[in-house]
Amino acid sequence: MADVGGIGAERLKSFVERVERLEEEKAALSADIREVYAEAKADGFDTKIMRQVVRLRKMDTADRQEQEELLDLYKRALGLAS
Amino acid sequence: MADVGGIGAERLKSFVERVERLEEEKAALSADIREVYAEAKADGFDTKIMRQVVRLRKMDTADRQEQEELLDLYKRALGLAS
Repeated sequence: MADVGGIGAERLKSFVERVERLEEEKAALSADIREVYAEAKADGFDTKIMRQVVRLRKMDTADRQEQEELLDLYKRALGLAS
Repeated sequence: MADVGGIGAERLKSFVERVERLEEEKAALSADIREVYAEAKADGFDTKIMRQVVRLRKMDTADRQEQEELLDLYKRALGLAS
């Protein structure tokens, strides 16, 4: 199947199979991440809050502070301030 | 920092760092996948269509046929049939 409709079928297949292998590895990592959260949950940690801190740790301090200030402002505007 | 507000800070940190390492590996794989598509594009392949076939190859034959038939039906209903 060297050529189907003018395209290099073998070449295309090789690209597609490379993508598929990488996607399988990604799926395995996603399963590993779920496993870590499951362990943490079994240990008594709240995984929703853990996901929030993972997200916050990715941000630089200035961005995080800005988001926290905005969140605080919106909460106060909507009467959610404790 | 054994205990902060009654939670095991070291234990929490260890979970969070495990998640972060796995997410880094996932991000690296996503970059590898983008790289494969970039190579394929440089080779003349249409990467949007490649992403479609990658998705289609994941499905079993019956599901794929059902989706293709439905797509065909919707296209005809909207006057998009060629």
